[in-house]
Amino acid sequence: MSTARFERIAIVGVGLIGGSLALALKAAGAVGEVVGVGRDPASLQLAVEHGLIDRTATLPEALDGCDLVLLATPVGQMARIMLDMAPHLSTHTLVTDAGSTKQDVVSLMQTCLPEHVANCVPAHPIAGAELSGPLAARADLYVRRNVVLCPLAETSPQAMQRVSTMWQQCGAVVRFMDAAQHDATFAAVSHLPHLLAYALVDMIARRANRDELFSYAASGFRDFTRIAGSSPEMWRDIALANRQALLAELDAYTLQLAALRSALDAGNGADLMAVFSAARAARQAWLQPG
Amino acid sequence: MSTARFERIAIVGVGLIGGSLALALKAAGAVGEVVGVGRDPASLQLAVEHGLIDRTATLPEALDGCDLVLLATPVGQMARIMLDMAPHLSTHTLVTDAGSTKQDVVSLMQTCLPEHVANCVPAHPIAGAELSGPLAARADLYVRRNVVLCPLAETSPQAMQRVSTMWQQCGAVVRFMDAAQHDATFAAVSHLPHLLAYALVDMIARRANRDELFSYAASGFRDFTRIAGSSPEMWRDIALANRQALLAELDAYTLQLAALRSALDAGNGADLMAVFSAARAARQAWLQPG
Repeated sequence: MSTARFERIAIVGVGLIGGSLALALKAAGAVGEVVGVGRDPASLQLAVEHGLIDRTATLPEALDGCDLVLLATPVGQMARIMLDMAPHLSTHTLVTDAGSTKQDVVSLMQTCLPEHVANCVPAHPIAGAELSGPLAARADLYVRRNVVLCPLAETSPQAMQRVSTMWQQCGAVVRFMDAAQHDATFAAVSHLPHLLAYALVDMIARRANRDELFSYAASGFRDFTRIAGSSPEMWRDIALANRQALLAELDAYTLQLAALRSALDAGNGADLMAVFSAARAARQAWLQPG
Repeated sequence: MSTARFERIAIVGVGLIGGSLALALKAAGAVGEVVGVGRDPASLQLAVEHGLIDRTATLPEALDGCDLVLLATPVGQMARIMLDMAPHLSTHTLVTDAGSTKQDVVSLMQTCLPEHVANCVPAHPIAGAELSGPLAARADLYVRRNVVLCPLAETSPQAMQRVSTMWQQCGAVVRFMDAAQHDATFAAVSHLPHLLAYALVDMIARRANRDELFSYAASGFRDFTRIAGSSPEMWRDIALANRQALLAELDAYTLQLAALRSALDAGNGADLMAVFSAARAARQAWLQPG
């Protein structure tokens, strides 16, 4: 693994994702100064007090002399931030992000930062949690986690190499994907499950006997719905940004449920058993490969 | 809490649930001898070797001089077992079960054990796990877990008291419910989530690019699908036994998904945000009451 050091980086959105990158880079000795930018002064102050960032600044100030800027905000905010950044970006500053959708970020970079696309490296660290905010940040969040890079056609090899090295220094496994393939993949294995978990909890919470129902919910329910504890704003933005792929997955899943409903309605135990058995076997193979 | 001791109990189906009850009663000094009955000799032998049961026996043998018999098999097997038991049951032997559905068990007890209904106490310990089999059994499985008793109209107060005390001696919290109310409650908070998790994993496992998809699945997917690691046979039987209530929940959930689909298709971020926020708030209130 090659090593590299940034003299100064700026992190826009110092929560779980941005704060953990800051802690990991500091722990690796891979960064000099970390400047934090955000919309909530109290949250930024917490980030300073807990050593995630060295100081706070406005966006233009933070870009001054900055080697790399990470956008770690909900994706719905990125258009405005990129437009605000454009007049202040140095030619050498790398721009990367941590959004859970990538086609929208690729498009925004091309539209909002046309002069800087060679320095733009869209990225997605696969290390979410239902916790959020700076106090959830951990230096080891990315150890052995996938980080997917979805470079633009215009991204320079040097920019890709530096961002790749940065994540590897945090312990992550860097993988490369086309943005459309990325979005289709995560619609299936991440975005759809989030939607399904939110939908179930909301359905039960609307019932008149919700307290009774929740009082009997146990560990299976708790784990199934853990991702429904995630940030609603972040997941609204992800759902909207990846709308087409998520609609396709939702439709496929609705068909799957309709087939199960037919089997159940017909008392067809063999069909139910086939689905349940195939699912368990596939999950076991995933968790214990080889 | 009153205490009581059984000289001899029989457990039919010595897996996670039956084996854990045996271990817990032994740890509490609440049982003399535990006799195991099952369809898999190798599994029963493991249960003997690990001290879950003291010996194995055929069902008629096990009922001889037995104070209580626990049916801890998939619910699909209970009709045959009860019919086999009927001619060998002493008038003093209590009959209870650990099935996840209760209207079917109530009905089976009335049909198959009409001479013994005063001694029948349908029960549901809420302590499943995706692990199964005798090696998964633990003496503390029921500590602070709900155990729901759904007595028949004919169940004697003495029988109910003894089974209630037995579970309390294992550390469980005993609650009472009507069988229909039980089945409707668990269709919502347990049976539906299991169906949803199995459906998602099976859907992904059927894709040509399943390996690629699974390679990007992370902790959110792992927890959401944990219950899809549960016994397919057990969950087939539960789904069929609680078919009407589960169909009703599946239909309600399908409507909920259709509403979310409309919001997503229309780019209605406010509606998505409302569902996601309500779900998160309800889940937090459930996990941290007061």
